Amino acid sequence: MITDADVERWLREDVGHHDVTNQVPGETTGRLVAKANGVVAGLEAACAVFEYLGVDVLDRLEAGTRIEPGDTLLEVEGSAREVLRGERIAVNLAGHASGVATRTRQAVDAARIESEDVRIAATRKTTPGLRGLEKRAVVAGGGDTHRLDLSHMVMVKDNHVAEMGLEGAISHFRERVSFATKIEVEVEAVEDAPRAADAGADVVLLDNMTPAETATAVETLSEYESVLAEASGGITLEAVPEYAATGVDVVSMGSLTHSAPSLDLSFRTGK
Amino acid sequence: MITDADVERWLREDVGHHDVTNQVPGETTGRLVAKANGVVAGLEAACAVFEYLGVDVLDRLEAGTRIEPGDTLLEVEGSAREVLRGERIAVNLAGHASGVATRTRQAVDAARIESEDVRIAATRKTTPGLRGLEKRAVVAGGGDTHRLDLSHMVMVKDNHVAEMGLEGAISHFRERVSFATKIEVEVEAVEDAPRAADAGADVVLLDNMTPAETATAVETLSEYESVLAEASGGITLEAVPEYAATGVDVVSMGSLTHSAPSLDLSFRTGK
Amino acid sequence: MITDADVERWLREDVGHHDVTNQVPGETTGRLVAKANGVVAGLEAACAVFEYLGVDVLDRLEAGTRIEPGDTLLEVEGSAREVLRGERIAVNLAGHASGVATRTRQAVDAARIESEDVRIAATRKTTPGLRGLEKRAVVAGGGDTHRLDLSHMVMVKDNHVAEMGLEGAISHFRERVSFATKIEVEVEAVEDAPRAADAGADVVLLDNMTPAETATAVETLSEYESVLAEASGGITLEAVPEYAATGVDVVSMGSLTHSAPSLDLSFRTGK
Amino acid sequence: MITDADVERWLREDVGHHDVTNQVPGETTGRLVAKANGVVAGLEAACAVFEYLGVDVLDRLEAGTRIEPGDTLLEVEGSAREVLRGERIAVNLAGHASGVATRTRQAVDAARIESEDVRIAATRKTTPGLRGLEKRAVVAGGGDTHRLDLSHMVMVKDNHVAEMGLEGAISHFRERVSFATKIEVEVEAVEDAPRAADAGADVVLLDNMTPAETATAVETLSEYESVLAEASGGITLEAVPEYAATGVDVVSMGSLTHSAPSLDLSFRTGK
Amino acid sequence: MITDADVERWLREDVGHHDVTNQVPGETTGRLVAKANGVVAGLEAACAVFEYLGVDVLDRLEAGTRIEPGDTLLEVEGSAREVLRGERIAVNLAGHASGVATRTRQAVDAARIESEDVRIAATRKTTPGLRGLEKRAVVAGGGDTHRLDLSHMVMVKDNHVAEMGLEGAISHFRERVSFATKIEVEVEAVEDAPRAADAGADVVLLDNMTPAETATAVETLSEYESVLAEASGGITLEAVPEYAATGVDVVSMGSLTHSAPSLDLSFRTGK
Amino acid sequence: MITDADVERWLREDVGHHDVTNQVPGETTGRLVAKANGVVAGLEAACAVFEYLGVDVLDRLEAGTRIEPGDTLLEVEGSAREVLRGERIAVNLAGHASGVATRTRQAVDAARIESEDVRIAATRKTTPGLRGLEKRAVVAGGGDTHRLDLSHMVMVKDNHVAEMGLEGAISHFRERVSFATKIEVEVEAVEDAPRAADAGADVVLLDNMTPAETATAVETLSEYESVLAEASGGITLEAVPEYAATGVDVVSMGSLTHSAPSLDLSFRTGK
Repeated sequence: MITDADVERWLREDVGHHDVTNQVPGETTGRLVAKANGVVAGLEAACAVFEYLGVDVLDRLEAGTRIEPGDTLLEVEGSAREVLRGERIAVNLAGHASGVATRTRQAVDAARIESEDVRIAATRKTTPGLRGLEKRAVVAGGGDTHRLDLSHMVMVKDNHVAEMGLEGAISHFRERVSFATKIEVEVEAVEDAPRAADAGADVVLLDNMTPAETATAVETLSEYESVLAEASGGITLEAVPEYAATGVDVVSMGSLTHSAPSLDLSFRTGK
Repeated sequence: MITDADVERWLREDVGHHDVTNQVPGETTGRLVAKANGVVAGLEAACAVFEYLGVDVLDRLEAGTRIEPGDTLLEVEGSAREVLRGERIAVNLAGHASGVATRTRQAVDAARIESEDVRIAATRKTTPGLRGLEKRAVVAGGGDTHRLDLSHMVMVKDNHVAEMGLEGAISHFRERVSFATKIEVEVEAVEDAPRAADAGADVVLLDNMTPAETATAVETLSEYESVLAEASGGITLEAVPEYAATGVDVVSMGSLTHSAPSLDLSFRTGK
Repeated sequence: MITDADVERWLREDVGHHDVTNQVPGETTGRLVAKANGVVAGLEAACAVFEYLGVDVLDRLEAGTRIEPGDTLLEVEGSAREVLRGERIAVNLAGHASGVATRTRQAVDAARIESEDVRIAATRKTTPGLRGLEKRAVVAGGGDTHRLDLSHMVMVKDNHVAEMGLEGAISHFRERVSFATKIEVEVEAVEDAPRAADAGADVVLLDNMTPAETATAVETLSEYESVLAEASGGITLEAVPEYAATGVDVVSMGSLTHSAPSLDLSFRTGK
Repeated sequence: MITDADVERWLREDVGHHDVTNQVPGETTGRLVAKANGVVAGLEAACAVFEYLGVDVLDRLEAGTRIEPGDTLLEVEGSAREVLRGERIAVNLAGHASGVATRTRQAVDAARIESEDVRIAATRKTTPGLRGLEKRAVVAGGGDTHRLDLSHMVMVKDNHVAEMGLEGAISHFRERVSFATKIEVEVEAVEDAPRAADAGADVVLLDNMTPAETATAVETLSEYESVLAEASGGITLEAVPEYAATGVDVVSMGSLTHSAPSLDLSFRTGK
Repeated sequence: MITDADVERWLREDVGHHDVTNQVPGETTGRLVAKANGVVAGLEAACAVFEYLGVDVLDRLEAGTRIEPGDTLLEVEGSAREVLRGERIAVNLAGHASGVATRTRQAVDAARIESEDVRIAATRKTTPGLRGLEKRAVVAGGGDTHRLDLSHMVMVKDNHVAEMGLEGAISHFRERVSFATKIEVEVEAVEDAPRAADAGADVVLLDNMTPAETATAVETLSEYESVLAEASGGITLEAVPEYAATGVDVVSMGSLTHSAPSLDLSFRTGK
Repeated sequence: MITDADVERWLREDVGHHDVTNQVPGETTGRLVAKANGVVAGLEAACAVFEYLGVDVLDRLEAGTRIEPGDTLLEVEGSAREVLRGERIAVNLAGHASGVATRTRQAVDAARIESEDVRIAATRKTTPGLRGLEKRAVVAGGGDTHRLDLSHMVMVKDNHVAEMGLEGAISHFRERVSFATKIEVEVEAVEDAPRAADAGADVVLLDNMTPAETATAVETLSEYESVLAEASGGITLEAVPEYAATGVDVVSMGSLTHSAPSLDLSFRTGK
């Protein structure tokens, strides 16, 4: 959720001590308008900024709506001074989040060529301070948030395995985490996938494998009904269909959040 | 500057209430390593995270250094538990800032083909919460911060002109802002450039003009020695040389900060 | 994790604007000492307070250690002024957390009479502002954190079922939550337990059932190998063995965190 | 007072990054209902949570009201989504505070058996972050806040006496604190009580004395008209009447705040 | 701008944990009334306090209005409890800011005796935490904010000159700061003024010079049309006309913000 | 106490997003030096700023020390970059606090002409955000803090008396506040002073009385041994001896904190 403290931090950052250009009298309306094709996200944050400033939100699109140039995403009305004060931050937030949603939608659409149900997931490679915004944008684009923070799901990584062995590490964490928490195990060799499943992994992360290796690993996991398989490691938009075709349950991509270009939006005031 | 409050916010966001996977005993070293070519930035933020966690910074590259795959950007040493806790945030910050610096460097290099001294500048289209980080990254890439916030430089925009006329708006703000503050005036028609200069603009923003129009406007401004000209409005990396060749003083690009892909970095622990 | 901002809030609350009584010269040591039997927890918070004040922590017990009257939990050394400033908050934090750990230990011990492996879990009925502290204290007492926040695990409740039906609600959330997130379904009738499991619940919450009903419900769930059963609803310490004997996987109790009396501790300064 | 920053901290703690279960459409009412006998407190905090979320408070009981199972403490109306978001925190705050008020009321009632006017007071042994809430709950239960923080009243303790002597310590602080601040002096021997009063104590704290010793000390203080006597040190609910009968002015009990079980409350939505 | 976080900090500071005196029932009006002649400022902060408390602002004077004893600056209406809670902070803020505005007005009026257009400017010698309030108060008094923070305008000082030489330091910073940022150079000798202008200073600060020296320095700068001259260094209200007569563009005075006595205001409740 | 959060707020306010002038290499020392006669205060805040920045404090004067031009108040050593970053804030804090201490000392010295033991006290008319700093400065100047916040001591004012009568209001609050809290009663007529004392006031505030009226009121209070009398209401430095001669216990003055000019201090770097 967006708190008032977030909005205050953003405003303080953009306004500075004394801005004279927004001392415009009267009331105005403002509209956030698309200049490119894409998927809407981030309006909850843009609205939070306007609401903090006492500006009314008249209308807004739902997160996940596909948009074209000229479409209005958000319409507000209020003191011209406050509308102008919030404008730039609103565009920055919505443009960034919509860029993430749009990139996610592209990846999901690419996956659908080969698979009805593979999930396209984000990672923890998010912009510090904006994880919630970006994870919601991924959902708006049809993607999966993956774990929200380190406490959400346990990830057994190579350093744990180096220290305790694969089975040892899994049982170590099984004892220490809540029944509410899933355990995912990162493996780099195909033969480790069924070992992880045997040892109690809820999800097996097939890291940096080729599509062929991924398909083999998925095959070895087919007998473990409740165990999910995730492919990860520098998977590009172009490679998505190939990975989707392997039968893996999840394809995760850091680029959804850390490298999506902003969606081009503009803010227009007045009637 | 990065404050402890920033670091706490980032840690709280990434760690959550109860992470059991980082409860690793002993000490370790860690290195932030490049996996791609680029320009370094953002290490002051990565270091602030580690220092908050009591992890020592042994060595770090200077902002602006060009790097190749395999280069070490940062080396730290401390409790394994705390190194692991800071790792992901450090990569996210440095990867994002280095991406901005790298994109800026590309634009500056493109501009240098045609001009020795044109400045490549960022805008206020920054990621909310990370403006300082991104502006410093622009500087690391050889760029210009442009104004840091609304109070730094006055921007006379179309809505002001609509209300008070071009000359009226400039004199209105000249009376109201400090002698310490420059006034920039946005114009969309070539013939308005010398009017703005005559009326006292310190900088004239040539908005959404073609390179040819920009060159003409720059020509009309040549007699106003202390007045600077800036070209802006959806200028892509490809278009930079053309604009640089117009003789304009500054080319500004929102994409430096809002659409630069993250630079690929990894964090390696242990010797 | 405990942040500096937490410590500042606690200090500001306890010290006020101008305390003259702690202006004692010189250095001192201080010890946190048990006055009752129990289980240690909360020392990470007590230490964070002293460290913020520049007081050195010389020694401390591990979370989960059983203690008797006279045992030293924590030993610190530093400026007398700062030791005195932190003393009361340290006792309040450690006493509260150790009270939670002790109460949890009692419940776990009671459960062990009847079951080797049933888990005793806390709930979201925690003290606002201290959830992390209390959840860690539950772990120190041998318990299970249960879900850490609303985003950690989905709980399908009666209002969802009323709106969408049992199967409808489960599939609704299955589509909307990440593969990283478990889904728990609250049922009040024994016959709904297998329906929930069939519909894809990861955990079935048997709410407000008697031990006999619980045993029956557990029985109906026995064929769903990967589905867990949790008993909940005003279960007292006295009733724990009865519920543990039903074969349920988890017994959860709000009283572990919201009604545990503080463990009696005192702080002694000087040699 | 409860600030928006407090509410934001509690919400962030309970909600996490992405809760899908509260995305319920429409409006609803909600009622906080008693499931046990007790005394109401903490509704100002519960209301602050709902008001931050834009939920209207329709009706609420006054702090201090005695309640029975089935009584409605608070009624709210608003967006179902926001009512659900605030529900758990509201119950946690009001349950905790009402537990403190109820325990205090029990102690006051016990004291009234023997004394018309002895005050039952809390201590600084409060839950970090919730002192204001708990002190107000003590007042709701008919008790006395005692000092609110270290700056409110000076407490001369054994370490001060060890350093400067009893009379020395009192005159030391008398010179250093404001005329607005009372001075209380902790004594462990009956004969020190009149010495403290002679030296200028406003209140004498009779620490860890038996009821008989307390009565004797109170007797020795009877000639100092404006000097108050307080009994303290592990006094249980059972021992309250005995201490009340000694003629002491104040009986203080840490257990009012640190060991009161939560009062059992539930939250019901819909008509 | 004044944020909710500012208001919360001020309220927490003034109210403490438990104020019983403001528990007054009913509604009331309140007026902030002048008890002395002066210039109004700071009402935006006083209003922010009342609005945070849910008190309506009925009417307020504009910043910069000259007032006499008996004039009403601000009128509010709301819950008596909340009006009383905000009263003292509102008076403290408005009294302080109006004191700054009044002192500034006196300096501007003194300057006008000798010069039509010299600017009277504040400095960075402001009260920590209240820079925005004080800078706005200076503007309300007819003054100039001068630079708002270290990032607003570069100040080349003696330590930079000692290290790099006058011309070296100026060109050093010219390369490193944005085109949006002015460069001011501090000189202590008359002959350094034209050197600074030649080297590219936008503003020359004539530090600690007598009026006669200042006049000479201004004379040497007359050929640099776009370069401004500022006089600074312990200039008292009495000395303002003399400095104004030198032809300098700006006279700056730390005393406007750090030594202006509060303007005498009172707050009256009820009709 | 000064928290890290305070220091961060002050730094953020003064530094802005990107200050290039403090990027000086190497180490330096710095000294805070008096340029006028006065009394030292506020160094705890100046030190907190430098310590946050990692600059060592080598030496500092004690609060309350009388100083002359040329005296060193504080000496620090550290990175030149960080020393320069903290310099201005340190001077602003120490100059303001020392101004308050100096003004208080003048008032105390004026009072001593006529009375050995009258107390000179500050009020709640402090600068929002800096109450602790100012109250400590008053103590450094030999003054009395008076009440620290609204919860510290109850003040019965004219609006309470209007509603409940003098005796009624006093007994109303006597029942509602802790035994730890004094009650002061504001009276404007001489004859109300003994009524207030009779009704149980701990302190009687003689508001806006002439010295003669004050003396009469003090006389009427002479039989109430433990009741203190305070004179207040626009008392100037010049009027202090007259009021001190009346036998009143306390003379309080808002001007100590809201109108004391800053003490002239400078900061010198290098050897």
